[in-house]
Amino acid sequence: MKLATLNKGRDGELIVVSRDLTRAVRVPGIAVTLQQAIEDWDSLAPRLEKVYAALNGGQEDDAFNLDMAKLHSPLPRSYHWADGSAYLNHVQLVRQARGAEMPETFWSDPLMYQGGGDQFLAPTEDIEAISEDHGIDFEGEIAVITDDVPMAVTPEQAAGHIKLVMLVNDVSLRGLIPGELAKGFGFFQAKPASSFSPICVTPDELGDAWRDGKVHLPLTVHLNGEKFGEPEAGPDMIFSFPQLVAHAAKTRYLGAGAIVGSGTVSNPGPDGGPGKPVADGGVGYSCLAEVRMVEKILHGDSRTPFMRFGDRVRIEMFDRQGQSIFGAIDQQVVKYQPK
Amino acid sequence: MKLATLNKGRDGELIVVSRDLTRAVRVPGIAVTLQQAIEDWDSLAPRLEKVYAALNGGQEDDAFNLDMAKLHSPLPRSYHWADGSAYLNHVQLVRQARGAEMPETFWSDPLMYQGGGDQFLAPTEDIEAISEDHGIDFEGEIAVITDDVPMAVTPEQAAGHIKLVMLVNDVSLRGLIPGELAKGFGFFQAKPASSFSPICVTPDELGDAWRDGKVHLPLTVHLNGEKFGEPEAGPDMIFSFPQLVAHAAKTRYLGAGAIVGSGTVSNPGPDGGPGKPVADGGVGYSCLAEVRMVEKILHGDSRTPFMRFGDRVRIEMFDRQGQSIFGAIDQQVVKYQPK
Repeated sequence: MKLATLNKGRDGELIVVSRDLTRAVRVPGIAVTLQQAIEDWDSLAPRLEKVYAALNGGQEDDAFNLDMAKLHSPLPRSYHWADGSAYLNHVQLVRQARGAEMPETFWSDPLMYQGGGDQFLAPTEDIEAISEDHGIDFEGEIAVITDDVPMAVTPEQAAGHIKLVMLVNDVSLRGLIPGELAKGFGFFQAKPASSFSPICVTPDELGDAWRDGKVHLPLTVHLNGEKFGEPEAGPDMIFSFPQLVAHAAKTRYLGAGAIVGSGTVSNPGPDGGPGKPVADGGVGYSCLAEVRMVEKILHGDSRTPFMRFGDRVRIEMFDRQGQSIFGAIDQQVVKYQPK
Repeated sequence: MKLATLNKGRDGELIVVSRDLTRAVRVPGIAVTLQQAIEDWDSLAPRLEKVYAALNGGQEDDAFNLDMAKLHSPLPRSYHWADGSAYLNHVQLVRQARGAEMPETFWSDPLMYQGGGDQFLAPTEDIEAISEDHGIDFEGEIAVITDDVPMAVTPEQAAGHIKLVMLVNDVSLRGLIPGELAKGFGFFQAKPASSFSPICVTPDELGDAWRDGKVHLPLTVHLNGEKFGEPEAGPDMIFSFPQLVAHAAKTRYLGAGAIVGSGTVSNPGPDGGPGKPVADGGVGYSCLAEVRMVEKILHGDSRTPFMRFGDRVRIEMFDRQGQSIFGAIDQQVVKYQPK
C-alpha cells in the first residue's frame, strides 16, 4: 500500500496513492491524517488496503490525478524523529578525514541522534538557510514509521512495529556540526528541518527488496540535474531497521508515528577504500560531506563546495523495473528571508 | 491563567484551573486539547482568560473539584522538546568532578539537547526503569511552552512567543550518559520520558517573580519525604528563557507547542564554591548527580546513591505566600515489567 499527505493545515490530509503514483483518493471515512491512521493501524490499515486495491483496479470513482507538488511529507510533523547512522562507511570516512580512529564499539552499538519533529519541510519545498557559510548539505537516507513500540523490545519484536517506509533528506549544516558536537549535547542547531519523500509505502510494496529489515535497492541522488550518487542501500547498512528501532526504544516507549532513520546511505569502493564519484565510474555519494572527505583523503583538500543558494538536490529510489517507488524529494536551497 | 490536562487519550482534555488549584472547568467549546489552544493562541487565549476569571469568581456553574491524580502533563506529548542547561554552576560541577575545565564559550553559547516528545509521563506516574544500574536520577527544572516561533528570532522577539510556564522532571539515566556522550550524538538512551507539573501558567501569574525572562522563586525538591533542595531559580540562570528559545530557533522554525527547558536549577554556595546540602544549612540540589559531585569534590567519592526502585521524588514551586503555583510532580521509581 502507498500513502501520502496533501499539503493543507498542520497535519495535512491522508490520501491513498496508486502503485504507479498516478492516481489518488481521499479517505476521510477511514482517517483524516496519517498520524490518526498510525495510532490505530491494526484496525485501519486493512480498510486502507481495500481502498488501495480498488484504486489500482480502477474502481475508485472519486480518484483524482496525483500532483506531487501538492504533497507534504507523509507526516508533516512527528512526536519522535530519531536518526541513526547505520552506514559505517560514512562514519569511518568522516573520522578518517580528521585523523580519528572509529571505536570498535561502533560495530555493535548504533549511533543515533534525536531530531526536531515539529515542522518538516514538504518534499519539494525550498530549504531556507541563513547563510551559505553554515555548510548546507543534503543527506539521502531511508526511514521507517512505527506504531506504538513498547520499551526494551528486541529487534525481532521491533520488526513487527515497522509499518511504513520512506526516504529522507536529513538537511545538515556542516559548518555548525563541529561546534555543536564539541559541546557534547548532539547536533542541535546543525540539523534544521528534514523533508521526506512524497510517498510512504508498506514494506510488502518493496517485494523481495525488503529483507533482513533493510531496503536492497540503490538510492538515486541528483545535484543540479547531474547524477551524484546511486549507492546500494542494502549491503552496507550495518544495523537493520529492527535493530535501530530496538535501539531507540531501549529505555523508553516510542509513540505511534515515531520515525527512525537509517543515516546517510554509503558504500565503500570495491577495494574496501572510499568509494569513487559517479564521474569516475563509482556509485557516488548521498551527501556532499562524503565526496569532500574522499577529496581530502585523496588530494589533501576538499574541492566540491557545499550547497549554495539556488542549488537543487533530488533524492529518489527506483525498483528493478525503473519505476519510482516513493516519488522524489526535489528541493532548492534559498536564502532565508525574515517574515 | 492556569491550565491543565485531564489524563484521557493520547492528548488528554484541556481544563482551566482556579488560581488556588482547587477547582477546574472543561472548555470543549474553546479547545479540546492544550495543543489545539497553543496552535491558535492569540484568538483562543482571551476566551480562556474569561473562563479563568469566572472560575476564580465562583461563577462557573460546571466547575468541579480538581483531583491532581487525574491530570496528565499539560502537553502529554510535544513535537519539540528541547532542554537547555542554563545553570552553569551545575555544568561546572559536573566537569570539575571529572577534572575538566569548562570552556569559556559556555558563558555565551547555551548548551541544549533535543529530547523525545512522543510520550511524556503524567506528573504522578511511576518512572519505569529497566535497571538500577542505569543510575536513575531526577532533574528539577522549569520549562516554557511557545506558540509558532519564526526562524532566527532575536531574544527580544522570542520573549513574545513564550505563552506558558511549568516545571519538569527531566529523568536522566546517569549510568548511560558517559557512553552516549562519548559517541558524540547526544544523550539519546540516557534521557527517557520526562514529566511535567500538573499545572502550567501564563507568565503574568508569576507576578514580579517573572522578570528578565526568568522565574525568581525557589524550586522545592523532596526525596523520599525529606527536603533535598530549595535552590533559587532566578539569579544563577545564565541564559534567560527568551535567550534559550532564540537559541533553539537559530536555524529553524519552532512549531506551536514547542517546549524549551532551563536545565537543572542550581546555585553555587555563598562563597562561590559548590553549594551545601540542606542538612548542612545549604539550599541543596535539584538532582542527585550534583550532590554526588559535591561529595566527590569534598571527600573523593560519591556517597549518595542514585534512585532505587521504590524511591520517590517530589518537585514543586511555591509563591512568596507559600501557595503552590504549578501543583507537584510526585513520582516513584519502579522496575519496568514487560507488558
